[in-house]
Amino acid sequence: MAKDKLLGGLLASGFDEHSCLSRYESILYRKVSPYQPSAYLVSKLRNYEDLHKRCGPNTQPYNKTVEQLKSGGSVGSTDCKYVVWVCYSGLGNRILTLASVFLYALLTERVLLVDRGKDMADLFCEPFPEKSWFLPPDFPITNKFNSFGPKSPESYGNMLKNNLIKASMESEPSYLYLHLAHDYDDHDKLFFCDDDQALLKKVPWLIVRTDNYFVPSLFLMPSFEHALCMLFPEKETIFHHLGRYLFHPSNHVWGLITRYYKAYLSKADERVGIQVRIFDKGPGPYQYVKNQISACTLGEKLLPEVDIKGSINVTPSENSKVKAVLMTSLVSGYFENVRNMYWEHPTVNGDIIGVYQPSHEEQQQTEKRLHNMKAWAEMYLLSLTDVLVTSAWSTFGYVAQGLGGLKPWILYKSENQTTPNPPCQRAVSMEPCFHAPPFYDCKAKKGIDTGKVVPHVRHCEDISWGLKVVDSHAEL
Amino acid sequence: MAKDKLLGGLLASGFDEHSCLSRYESILYRKVSPYQPSAYLVSKLRNYEDLHKRCGPNTQPYNKTVEQLKSGGSVGSTDCKYVVWVCYSGLGNRILTLASVFLYALLTERVLLVDRGKDMADLFCEPFPEKSWFLPPDFPITNKFNSFGPKSPESYGNMLKNNLIKASMESEPSYLYLHLAHDYDDHDKLFFCDDDQALLKKVPWLIVRTDNYFVPSLFLMPSFEHALCMLFPEKETIFHHLGRYLFHPSNHVWGLITRYYKAYLSKADERVGIQVRIFDKGPGPYQYVKNQISACTLGEKLLPEVDIKGSINVTPSENSKVKAVLMTSLVSGYFENVRNMYWEHPTVNGDIIGVYQPSHEEQQQTEKRLHNMKAWAEMYLLSLTDVLVTSAWSTFGYVAQGLGGLKPWILYKSENQTTPNPPCQRAVSMEPCFHAPPFYDCKAKKGIDTGKVVPHVRHCEDISWGLKVVDSHAEL
Ligand SMILES: Nc1nc2c(ncn2[C@@H]2O[C@H](COP(=O)(O)OP(=O)(O)O)[C@@H](O)[C@H]2O)c(=O)[nH]1
Ligand SMILES: Nc1nc2c(ncn2[C@@H]2O[C@H](COP(=O)(O)OP(=O)(O)O)[C@@H](O)[C@H]2O)c(=O)[nH]1
Repeated sequence: MAKDKLLGGLLASGFDEHSCLSRYESILYRKVSPYQPSAYLVSKLRNYEDLHKRCGPNTQPYNKTVEQLKSGGSVGSTDCKYVVWVCYSGLGNRILTLASVFLYALLTERVLLVDRGKDMADLFCEPFPEKSWFLPPDFPITNKFNSFGPKSPESYGNMLKNNLIKASMESEPSYLYLHLAHDYDDHDKLFFCDDDQALLKKVPWLIVRTDNYFVPSLFLMPSFEHALCMLFPEKETIFHHLGRYLFHPSNHVWGLITRYYKAYLSKADERVGIQVRIFDKGPGPYQYVKNQISACTLGEKLLPEVDIKGSINVTPSENSKVKAVLMTSLVSGYFENVRNMYWEHPTVNGDIIGVYQPSHEEQQQTEKRLHNMKAWAEMYLLSLTDVLVTSAWSTFGYVAQGLGGLKPWILYKSENQTTPNPPCQRAVSMEPCFHAPPFYDCKAKKGIDTGKVVPHVRHCEDISWGLKVVDSHAEL
Repeated sequence: MAKDKLLGGLLASGFDEHSCLSRYESILYRKVSPYQPSAYLVSKLRNYEDLHKRCGPNTQPYNKTVEQLKSGGSVGSTDCKYVVWVCYSGLGNRILTLASVFLYALLTERVLLVDRGKDMADLFCEPFPEKSWFLPPDFPITNKFNSFGPKSPESYGNMLKNNLIKASMESEPSYLYLHLAHDYDDHDKLFFCDDDQALLKKVPWLIVRTDNYFVPSLFLMPSFEHALCMLFPEKETIFHHLGRYLFHPSNHVWGLITRYYKAYLSKADERVGIQVRIFDKGPGPYQYVKNQISACTLGEKLLPEVDIKGSINVTPSENSKVKAVLMTSLVSGYFENVRNMYWEHPTVNGDIIGVYQPSHEEQQQTEKRLHNMKAWAEMYLLSLTDVLVTSAWSTFGYVAQGLGGLKPWILYKSENQTTPNPPCQRAVSMEPCFHAPPFYDCKAKKGIDTGKVVPHVRHCEDISWGLKVVDSHAEL
């Protein structure tokens, strides 16, 4: 049977294969997903593609709205409306926010355009047919992006605060800045209220800067809830589908992924990913984290115990497996600890364990061209594993779990540099966590615990105040 | 066909398998050697084993000669004579010197006994049946070993210098110290003269400290030449045979070897070993060495070129091979450079290159128990490769090439921290190099170039004043 290279209709056919090998080759490396996109999602995506073709960069409607933007001031209705994603934060964050903003575009029938930042074009293929998703370089207000922030007078929150915008206004500004980053305030957060969405609907250009996967809060909005449930009947598959739809590694990154996979991972009977991201001050490695990794992988039986004393005489049986452990981390100490353990001691069951780490970049960097290519390759490689362990709080891990359709074991964040007990927990859902959700009831206009409103939006395993989408019948 | 686990008669049968798995399991990992031990070598080894059984530790003859040693002074003839190897220097050096001293024992019908130092018993199995090769702990003069050195009054050289010993003496001392280390002087070097051997023959206990593979100079001694040519008709196989006869990794080390091999090397179509040992002052890694490794491996076509520009579109063909590159070094920089090159760029021929380094100990250490176990495991793993690149001057590499029966490409030692040109040369013989040979004509009693006396003892590829045994018809 020919493999389904369009992933159950998620991908459009007809793209040029050579300019983006990963799009149709991913099936050679990833197991078939047990989750099928809904027919409604597929049709929405095809519709979006048509919209993007019609309204994308340098089309007639695009040029027209840009002209309006240039002339400034308020505008009437336009053929096409846009939401611009501003490049911001680490790569994991960027991938999650792009997916969030794309979903918002789907729901609001806007065209997504992407600020290419320093390296977005190096990292990803174009996801939509014919028209680019990148904002053209001559977009009139690109030079303002850097100044956009919590204090910008153009931000929706500040315009509300200063009474410069209200529902009863006759005409809207040609653009608005939506500040949805971790440091947003209560006014910015009104983005998540239906009344405000009604107002925003009329603004042709929305510019968004965010480092949050804000999808869970969209589920709490009556105006979006129905469409979201139709799009994603399997609720925890949102990023799984949108991620696989949007994020195709560029040929350069695909080379990194496929070469690594073939050289180190392909021959194993099972692949175990361990993503180690520690948010402590120092560079590490820390002994308490080494202990945590062992406690989790051994305690949860993801990896076999070793015979420290060498007392057991294991003759490798026919059943013994070769497992490849793919570790990612900014430092090499955790990798070396696991690798040495399995080098220095036999496993009690005869399994053969190879341990691999593609890079140790030591520090998060933003300038080096290859740096984020490797980060992206590593997220993707983690997503190709059969069993995944991730670190609490890390969007890097969320991307891997989401693309891979994996419910990871999450290594808890440590308080005061001791190994948490238990060291890890299996995730209830493969969805990413929204780290800084609003706690506000738009109708009642007062604070509420937004993790208790509906069964499918709950607090995250790794961040008690975070929100994530789970399947309604999931057990926490 | 059952594999020949006795290696063409080199090994005795009948050893307990469990206490030393490596002895009979080596054939599972190493290709069959194209070099067969001569029937004469095999019979000499069996005779030696009988001698060792008869005269080894705690036998009646042993006890008797030890008594004589304790009572001191001169002695008459004894049933058994001994040569004691004193543990000294790095592990590669030790392995080569043990082989040299064992060959001397074979030629002079002495029993080899081994000073166990800190870790010899952790590293190796017993090579001889029934009786241990270790000097018993209560050997009366073990406490003197540490003080033996170039200045010791008990050394043969100093006794000659001080006229305390001569051929015409009636009785000989019960023991003599032979100082054959790199800092030995012209009197010590008389060891390599037949007349002196005639005298030494009568001394029951010879205690040797050396860090030199002194076999090549034995070939230049008329008294040994004939036996050596009979023992080793294929001249460059001396260490190849003696090394495989003597050095069986302990079960603990065998675990390190086999686990590493199975996890990282076994599945490759070809294994390439690169041993990097740099004798510069600083810790490195040095750019000139990185360049040298690339220049050698690519120039000699041991590894494929990469497509730096990404311009070639290589579709991996049916013929593309998986190559595992095993690198050893005290630091990880050279490994990372090669690994990243093959990660970041495709090979021009579609070959898939995995690069591995078991450890990076940063510094040569002598105290840590696991340190030399890993060093030994790594030498052995290098010897299991199909193609080997070694570093000039390093006995670590000599051991690997010798055990593996490999003629390595030798990375030249750099002058003034620049990449040598050419970067490497194929070795003419797999024999180790004797780094500090004597340049003396015993008959004429004057200096000569000992590398020009016979066709099968020549100067080394990596050390111009060193000597090594080559096949007479080898081309330098
Ligand atoms: N190559 C690599 N880079 C990493 C790793 N962990 C963190 N980084 C770098 O640090 C950035 C972290 O930001 P982000 O991806 O947003 O993830 P988060 O901070 O863990 O949520 C990444 O984009 C990488 O640039 C890792 O394991 N491998
Ligand atoms: N594990 C390991 N140890 C090494 C390596 N290179 C050097 N060493 C250590 O340094 C010592 C070097 O001494 P020796 O083996 O006599 O080799 P030589 O100095 O290169 O002739 C070794 O015995 C090891 O303890 C290496 O690549 N791997």
